[in-house]
Amino acid sequence: MRLKNVKGANEIIEKGIYYIKNPNENINNWSKVFKSNNPIYIEIGMGKGDFIIKMAELHPEYNFLGIEKYESVLVRAVEKIEKTNLPNVFVIRYDAADLNNIIEKEIDTIYLNFSDPWPKKRHEKRRLTSETFLPIYDKIFKGRKRIIQKTDNIELFGYSIVSLSKYGYTIEDVSLDLHSTDKENSLTEYEKKFSDKGYKINYLEALKK
Amino acid sequence: MRLKNVKGANEIIEKGIYYIKNPNENINNWSKVFKSNNPIYIEIGMGKGDFIIKMAELHPEYNFLGIEKYESVLVRAVEKIEKTNLPNVFVIRYDAADLNNIIEKEIDTIYLNFSDPWPKKRHEKRRLTSETFLPIYDKIFKGRKRIIQKTDNIELFGYSIVSLSKYGYTIEDVSLDLHSTDKENSLTEYEKKFSDKGYKINYLEALKK
Repeated sequence: MRLKNVKGANEIIEKGIYYIKNPNENINNWSKVFKSNNPIYIEIGMGKGDFIIKMAELHPEYNFLGIEKYESVLVRAVEKIEKTNLPNVFVIRYDAADLNNIIEKEIDTIYLNFSDPWPKKRHEKRRLTSETFLPIYDKIFKGRKRIIQKTDNIELFGYSIVSLSKYGYTIEDVSLDLHSTDKENSLTEYEKKFSDKGYKINYLEALKK
Repeated sequence: MRLKNVKGANEIIEKGIYYIKNPNENINNWSKVFKSNNPIYIEIGMGKGDFIIKMAELHPEYNFLGIEKYESVLVRAVEKIEKTNLPNVFVIRYDAADLNNIIEKEIDTIYLNFSDPWPKKRHEKRRLTSETFLPIYDKIFKGRKRIIQKTDNIELFGYSIVSLSKYGYTIEDVSLDLHSTDKENSLTEYEKKFSDKGYKINYLEALKK
């Protein structure tokens, strides 16, 4: 994603009541943060937040934690979320590579929406479905492991299927044109833009016991 | 595939020296038929034969058996193959659902090229990657099981990934645009026609121990 500098972003973020400043203090404690034992779903790379806010509205029976590394997009999510009155969503600024430092056996489902495809072979390890990240996810899942990915990038999509399958995940669901199906779907900002241009959205759900 | 009646098809087929009339006589005996212990690759639904003939030319180190149910396309394959002088290919007329009656632990790799997608849910069992067929394939594979599929049909492709994965196959390779990769690829008649029209070809390779 091309990033702009947003003036005063840090100040806006830090003021947000849905923003958790020191996520490392909440390891083993996320249910208390949510004041609920409902399953916790996270989105890694939440971007501007449309998806996770919509999901939190649609699914009061789950708790949602949005994770974003870049301040300049996180600030947009914070601005949007502050206008809601949702009890079941928080956002943090964090790097996916270190998630096991702040979460331990607490997650039900990971969403990976339109992640950076890192198309060059030498950047393979940076892809969020590579063997760099899968062992980290193992540590943060509570029980059975579930990853749901959406992407318009066919190379990343093929890569993910193979990487997850080789790592022991079963591919439970696949669509090469998500919007042609009747699956429930909350659009990301990016998804809306690209789908409007006629690009097809690929979808997978993977499970590991 | 839309099928035409071909006059005299049966006679042409039966005369072919690459055509095996009574495949049921060769169970446990296919290496002798090929006069070689090289690995045996089969194509289920060989159609007019372009793929398997090209593969046999490119890979003298393997033996190829083309399987086709419909006389009216099989005759075209027989006509083409009779013009070659290949030692490593035969064709038969047979139904995939009964393959375990003519082959027992003898196959290395199964190719499924542009199989009928059977799009209606009530026809799911007829898809060549459904749980109707996977147990039959189990019986005809010699050692590790390998299935390679190509299709332009995105519903069939998604279905195959899920079905194979749930059945215990690992998805070893995937491409959602085979012709954009540098993988070796022998075109089928259908593939050439549809690729020329701009359709993307989906490819998967699945392995089970």
